[in-house]
Amino acid sequence: MDVISVIRTKRDKGELSPEQIDWVIDAYTRGEVADEQMSALAMAILLNGMNREEIARWTAAMIASGERMDFSSLSRPTADKHSTGGVGDKITLPLAPLVAACGAAVPQLSGRGLGHTGGTLDKLESIPGWRALLSNEEMLHVLDTTGAVICAAGDGLAPADKKLYALRDVTGTVEAIPLIASSIMSKKIAEGTGSLVLDVKVGTGAFMKNIEDARELARTMVGLGTDSGVKTVALLTDMSTPLGLTAGNALEVRESVEVLAGGGPADVVELTIALAKEMLEAAGIKDADPAKALKDGSAMDHWRRMIAAQGGDPDATLPVAREQHVVTAPSTGVLTRLDAYDIGIAAWRLGAGRARKEDPVQAGAGVELHAKPGDTVTAGQPLLTLHTDTPEKFDYALKSLSGAWDIAEPGTEFAANPIVLDRIA
Amino acid sequence: MDVISVIRTKRDKGELSPEQIDWVIDAYTRGEVADEQMSALAMAILLNGMNREEIARWTAAMIASGERMDFSSLSRPTADKHSTGGVGDKITLPLAPLVAACGAAVPQLSGRGLGHTGGTLDKLESIPGWRALLSNEEMLHVLDTTGAVICAAGDGLAPADKKLYALRDVTGTVEAIPLIASSIMSKKIAEGTGSLVLDVKVGTGAFMKNIEDARELARTMVGLGTDSGVKTVALLTDMSTPLGLTAGNALEVRESVEVLAGGGPADVVELTIALAKEMLEAAGIKDADPAKALKDGSAMDHWRRMIAAQGGDPDATLPVAREQHVVTAPSTGVLTRLDAYDIGIAAWRLGAGRARKEDPVQAGAGVELHAKPGDTVTAGQPLLTLHTDTPEKFDYALKSLSGAWDIAEPGTEFAANPIVLDRIA
Repeated sequence: MDVISVIRTKRDKGELSPEQIDWVIDAYTRGEVADEQMSALAMAILLNGMNREEIARWTAAMIASGERMDFSSLSRPTADKHSTGGVGDKITLPLAPLVAACGAAVPQLSGRGLGHTGGTLDKLESIPGWRALLSNEEMLHVLDTTGAVICAAGDGLAPADKKLYALRDVTGTVEAIPLIASSIMSKKIAEGTGSLVLDVKVGTGAFMKNIEDARELARTMVGLGTDSGVKTVALLTDMSTPLGLTAGNALEVRESVEVLAGGGPADVVELTIALAKEMLEAAGIKDADPAKALKDGSAMDHWRRMIAAQGGDPDATLPVAREQHVVTAPSTGVLTRLDAYDIGIAAWRLGAGRARKEDPVQAGAGVELHAKPGDTVTAGQPLLTLHTDTPEKFDYALKSLSGAWDIAEPGTEFAANPIVLDRIA
Repeated sequence: MDVISVIRTKRDKGELSPEQIDWVIDAYTRGEVADEQMSALAMAILLNGMNREEIARWTAAMIASGERMDFSSLSRPTADKHSTGGVGDKITLPLAPLVAACGAAVPQLSGRGLGHTGGTLDKLESIPGWRALLSNEEMLHVLDTTGAVICAAGDGLAPADKKLYALRDVTGTVEAIPLIASSIMSKKIAEGTGSLVLDVKVGTGAFMKNIEDARELARTMVGLGTDSGVKTVALLTDMSTPLGLTAGNALEVRESVEVLAGGGPADVVELTIALAKEMLEAAGIKDADPAKALKDGSAMDHWRRMIAAQGGDPDATLPVAREQHVVTAPSTGVLTRLDAYDIGIAAWRLGAGRARKEDPVQAGAGVELHAKPGDTVTAGQPLLTLHTDTPEKFDYALKSLSGAWDIAEPGTEFAANPIVLDRIA
């Protein structure tokens, strides 16, 4: 087996054989196939595609590159959720304890933000004391005792994916559906969850800008999960505008706690409950009522226990950015568009996100929304508040907002997108 | 400027801007753009192409990465030739002194063999004492005093190409016409020749297997040369069967000396004269007669002076391989096919070529042909003689010859391909 013949096969629109795939993933993980060879192959895959058999084998080979976790010792069925990433997407925070409160075990391996989308671990790290890094034993212990755990994936899980993801990030080969699908699913299958609900985001603030690409990605991932014995469902959800009224780390934790307290923005509550129902159904739990668990405090109890079990103080005051800048509405009328991507870039520039993996993030930075599409706004009223510890970044952040909204004549009819656009099972 | 946006532009079928091209070639040469990023870009170029403006700029940027040579101090017009590589293609050896004998100066920067095609420098190095590596001053001196020089390109010439070629070689991105054309032409333009004749090979033993690809490559290179003020002409020539009766290093030197002595195989003589005429015309030399210069000994005189000026002994006995193995014709009839690629692979496996740049080659190894397509052969008569210092390789070489020829019924009519298939100016 040699790598050039593997590259040539895909370059010339051929199908990679199971032997070629197993060999190239293993050889790349061991360092026998060099980065420059793998990136050429990744570009050929991006441009020429892979069929279902190739993607399944590719995913299996990435799983086989590392360890597999096992939750069979737990007394409860496991359910996990994965979002493809969006702006203001704090759903994991209320969702994991909510589903735990309804009787499932939620092993939520999460990531950090890169670019304009935030990362769940970055958000939770704004809680004083909270630790993202757990050993496998600690993870199992938190999961067993509190019903939910949100932590970083260990180094032993799909190391081939870790190496390949870092390579794709610097070689313009992130946006390949076969590679996105196999990257996500290799980690989720290796993690050992019994069921999985995928939140595939669609819109300006998502990786997938149009619904057809999102459907293809969802179908690919549902197929991979199902073929591997994981009960998998995908919801396609709107990401043309930010979720809720905040984008930023501590800002989103505060909003998540509001949802767990029975309040919070309607769209966040709606999507949290929709995903919770899917997770509970996939886990085979029938008579739970997630809406009730938000109201009766049981979800909040699980949140507090989960945060405390990972060293966090659920009662601690959350960090606040040192400086604020208010953006006002330039005219009176109906807000018909507030762009998720532009808001995400602004939050990132304010310090909520990072440009490189090793950069720190600001806990308090981000964007607060005072109106959402469909709301009537008055000229001069606050539309957004920008938060940062580095006020010299305000101008840079404001640049990304120059075309971020549309305000139509007062009285204009406006039909908001539904949050859940499609369901693929 | 950042490399990911450059990669994305080409990945998404866009046109690279002059600024993007200048920046990426310079940054790659300086090591700011990493190998894994350049190989992803090379694969995107291979699959999505470049237009004429992009290729011209890419070539100019590679020339600008290094020094340019200057032959304006010479009293004679310069003419160079480049072959895209074939099996038994020893034409440079008789051609350079022949064209010098006819009044032009021939600065022939040549390469080594890689894979199944031989390299001019490897062939000449079978002459005891001969040196391929000359300083720029030595090169100019040999050229000025003998009319021709065949040597390795210095490190200062198009270093971006040197780095990129080595990368393409290990990443399955060699076969991209824009990259092949710009690689060849950047070196030839930087070398400073006034005119250039391209021998674009077509057939099983060539990079270009079909004539349409060869025409596109030829047109691209002629356009690049012409746009840069180099008078450039391309001949498309047949490479479905080896040139002459030898493939190997010392074997081909011996055959070249036969041609310079006024003998040699008809096809080698025909192509040598055809290319010489093109070079002389391009250099503006009108009343020279290359056929006569082969017969009257003046080409041979130039050969002997050129070899001696680079430390070689033109009278030395050439190395002979330690072992021979004769392959006989299995039946009687007309030889209708003797495959260039299969013979090239056999010669390579016998030790005439190298698998990696750092491998040594055997001076005496190779394949000798006792018949050519169109010849009548008798069952049991020698068809090929294999030469090697490593007889344990005979079996391996013989494997590549299992389907290397066709013998038709005796008396079958056979029309050989013309050697020159097309001319592009």
